[in-house]
Amino acid sequence: MNKTFASIITIGDELLIGQVIDTNSSWIAQELNKIGVSVKHRVAVGDIWDDIWKALDEETAQTDIIIITGGLGPTADDITKPLLAEYFGGKMIVHQPTLDHVQHIFEHILKRPMIERNAKQAEVPDNCIVLKNEKGTAPGMLFKREGKIFVSLPGVPHEMKWIMTNHVLPLIPQLFNTGFIEHRTLLTAGIGESFLAELIQPFELALPAHIKLAYLPNFGMVRLRLSGWASDQLVLKNELNTLFSSLKEQVKEYLIIDEDLPIEVAVGNLLKARNETVSTAESCTGGYIAHMLSIHAGSSAFFTGSIISYANIIKEMMLDVSHETLTTVGAVSQEAVTKMAESVRKSMNTHYSIAVSGIMGPGGATNEKPVGLVWIAVASANKVVAKSFNFRFDRRRNIELTTTNALNMLRAIIVDNS
Amino acid sequence: MNKTFASIITIGDELLIGQVIDTNSSWIAQELNKIGVSVKHRVAVGDIWDDIWKALDEETAQTDIIIITGGLGPTADDITKPLLAEYFGGKMIVHQPTLDHVQHIFEHILKRPMIERNAKQAEVPDNCIVLKNEKGTAPGMLFKREGKIFVSLPGVPHEMKWIMTNHVLPLIPQLFNTGFIEHRTLLTAGIGESFLAELIQPFELALPAHIKLAYLPNFGMVRLRLSGWASDQLVLKNELNTLFSSLKEQVKEYLIIDEDLPIEVAVGNLLKARNETVSTAESCTGGYIAHMLSIHAGSSAFFTGSIISYANIIKEMMLDVSHETLTTVGAVSQEAVTKMAESVRKSMNTHYSIAVSGIMGPGGATNEKPVGLVWIAVASANKVVAKSFNFRFDRRRNIELTTTNALNMLRAIIVDNS
Repeated sequence: MNKTFASIITIGDELLIGQVIDTNSSWIAQELNKIGVSVKHRVAVGDIWDDIWKALDEETAQTDIIIITGGLGPTADDITKPLLAEYFGGKMIVHQPTLDHVQHIFEHILKRPMIERNAKQAEVPDNCIVLKNEKGTAPGMLFKREGKIFVSLPGVPHEMKWIMTNHVLPLIPQLFNTGFIEHRTLLTAGIGESFLAELIQPFELALPAHIKLAYLPNFGMVRLRLSGWASDQLVLKNELNTLFSSLKEQVKEYLIIDEDLPIEVAVGNLLKARNETVSTAESCTGGYIAHMLSIHAGSSAFFTGSIISYANIIKEMMLDVSHETLTTVGAVSQEAVTKMAESVRKSMNTHYSIAVSGIMGPGGATNEKPVGLVWIAVASANKVVAKSFNFRFDRRRNIELTTTNALNMLRAIIVDNS
Repeated sequence: MNKTFASIITIGDELLIGQVIDTNSSWIAQELNKIGVSVKHRVAVGDIWDDIWKALDEETAQTDIIIITGGLGPTADDITKPLLAEYFGGKMIVHQPTLDHVQHIFEHILKRPMIERNAKQAEVPDNCIVLKNEKGTAPGMLFKREGKIFVSLPGVPHEMKWIMTNHVLPLIPQLFNTGFIEHRTLLTAGIGESFLAELIQPFELALPAHIKLAYLPNFGMVRLRLSGWASDQLVLKNELNTLFSSLKEQVKEYLIIDEDLPIEVAVGNLLKARNETVSTAESCTGGYIAHMLSIHAGSSAFFTGSIISYANIIKEMMLDVSHETLTTVGAVSQEAVTKMAESVRKSMNTHYSIAVSGIMGPGGATNEKPVGLVWIAVASANKVVAKSFNFRFDRRRNIELTTTNALNMLRAIIVDNS
C-alpha cells in the first residue's frame, strides 16, 4: 500500500501581503489526517493566473489529492474559476441547480434582490462535479484526472468546512486506499525541550520506522506527539497504545495531560466530571482567561463568571483589595491576587477561582516591577496558592502565557482537592 | 526596475497535520511588503529531506529572497541545518560566538546546566552568515547565491521576529532595488461584497494597471484595499491618496474606518482622543469583548473593566437584572441587555458600556430562541441602544461576530455623542 498524499493550494493576495492568517489549511490538514491522508505540501499563491497554473502543475506532479481554497468570490479579483475551466479543458456553463440555490438564498434568506454578479456564482466549468454549498453562494467543484482529484472550495471558512465535511471527506476513502494514520499526544510542563529529549532518547531511538516522535514546544510547555501510519488500524492502535504508555511512564514527573486537548478543555473536563465551578478575577489578562474557559461548548456547566478589574479602583470596589495594599505593595503583588481570588470565589459562589495581576507591556514597568512580572493566585474552599512569574515576551504572548499557567495552577488545585 | 519577489518556506510536520496555525508567514509577508518586497509564494513542507530540498529548488527558480522558518530546534525531528549545509556546499562547524551566547543563556537566564544537545545549537554551516538570536538559542543563518539571499530562521514567533527585525529587514534594501509598495484600506459595514462591487465598478475599471483593488469580506463587513507598486514613493503616495479619497466618497454611506485598523483599535483611538472610558457586561461572549478592548498596549487609558455574568445568578446579583425579567422574557432579551449595560456603566463609572447576551451554540436553543440569536446593548450617559442579531455560524465565529458588531455599535454611540 502506498501512502495517499494531498496538497493544499490557498489562493488570494491577502495571504501574501499578510492581511489575513490562514486557518483553513490547518483545519483541512487535520481532517485529511483523520482519514489517513498525509498533507505533503501547502502552498499559498496570489490572484495571478500564471502562479495558480504553476502551482497546479507542481502539486499534480507530487500528490494525489489537490485541495484549492479561495478565489471564488463574486468580485473582479477572483480568477480561479475560469482558470480551472481552461486548466481542465472545459468551458463555462450556467449550472441550473446552483442558480436556483443562489436565487433561493437572495429571496428567502438575505431578502435582497439578486444582481447579475451574484448569478455568475452559478457559472461553473462543464467538466466538473458541482459540490453544493449549503452555507453560501459559491459552489465547490471537483475535477478528476489520471487518478487524481482536484477540489476547489470557497475561502470563507464555514463554507469551506461544510463542503469538505459533506462532499469531499466522505468521497476520499471510496477513491483511494488511504490506510490509517493515528496520533497520540501528551503535554508536559516544567521541563525544556532539550532536557525532555535527553530523558527519552533511548525510547526515541528504539521507535520503529513507521512511527515518528515530534516535540511541539509552546507557552513554556512541551507537547509530545507519536504518529504512526499503517494499513491495519487495529494493529497500529495497539502498537501506539503500548508505546504511548511507555512514554507516559517515562515523563510522568512532568505529565499534565495525556490527550491532545488544549489545557482549557482538560480543565473544563475535570470540573464537569466533579460538578464543580470556577470564576475569575482578572487584571492584566483583561478577560482572556474567562474567554478561554467559555470558548468551548458546554462551558456553562462549570464557568460562572468573572470580574475584570482592569482599573485599580475596580479591584478596590468589587474585589475588596484594600486601598493600603494598592498603595503599598501595589496591584501586582501576592496580597492583591490572593484577595482577588478569595473575593471573586465568594461573591460568585464557586468551588475555585483564578486571579491574575501583572505587567504585560510594553509600558507599565517600574524599577521594582519589570514588564512580564505576573502574580497568579488560585483558590479553593480550603486554600489559596499564589505564585509569581517573569515572562519575557511581547504583550500578546505574555497574556497567553499567563492564561496557560493560570489554567495549569487551577488544574493542580483541583487534582489536589480530590 | 523589476519587482523584488520573495518566497516563504515553512518547515515542520505540525503545520501539515494541522496541529498549529501558521502566524509567522503573515507577519513576514506584512513586513516584507512594507519595504517593497512582494511575497509571491508561501510553501509549507514537513521535516522531510527531499521535500525541503525540492522546495528550495522551486523557490530559487522564481524569487529573489527565500525566507525559511522552522526546523531549527534541538531535537531529533529537525533536519534543516545539515540540509542547508549540504544544499549550499558547506560543512558544519561550531560557531564560537553562538556557543558563548547559548552558554550565557543557560548560566545567567535559565540557570540550568547546559547539555550537549544545547551546544549543538551553535553548530552552523561554514558558508553562512550567522544572525545572532538575542531571544533564544537557535541562531538565524543567511546564505547568498547568484544574487539571491536565503535566510533560515527559528520557528518560535518572537525569536523569528527579532532576527527579521534586527538583521534581515534592514539588509534587504541594501541588496535589492525594491521600489515601493503602498496600501490604502478602508472598512465598510452594512453592504455585501457583490453590491459593493456593483457600486464601485466604474472606479475599479478605471484603475491604472499598477494599482489593484481587493475585497476582503469578514465578520459581516467588507474591507477594501487599494495596493500600488512604483519606483517613486512620493508619486505613488499622491496617486493612491487621490484614488483613496474618491473611493471613500463613493462608499461613504457604508464607511466605518478609513485606516487598516482592527475595529477594536479604531474604537480605542476614539476613546483615547476623547479621554473617555468603557466597561462591558458580557454573557455569551464570556470576556472576549473585554479581551479585544485590552489586547493592545495603552488600553488602560480607556478600558476600566467588566462583569462577565455567564451564569444567570450573576446577572441578577451583580447587574441588577430582575428575577422577573429572567423568568419571563429571559436572559437573551432587550430588557436584560439594557439593564446589564446600564448597571455596569454605573457600577464601573464609565462613559460608555457594552452588554451582550445570546445563544452561541451548539446547545442552548429553545423554540423561540435559536442558536445565533444575540441581543447587544450599548449605553452612554444619555441613552441605551439595543439591537438583536441572528448569526448563523459556529460558536467561535458567533462570538467573534457578536464582538465585532458590539464594537461597531459602541463606535456609533461614541460618534453620535460628539
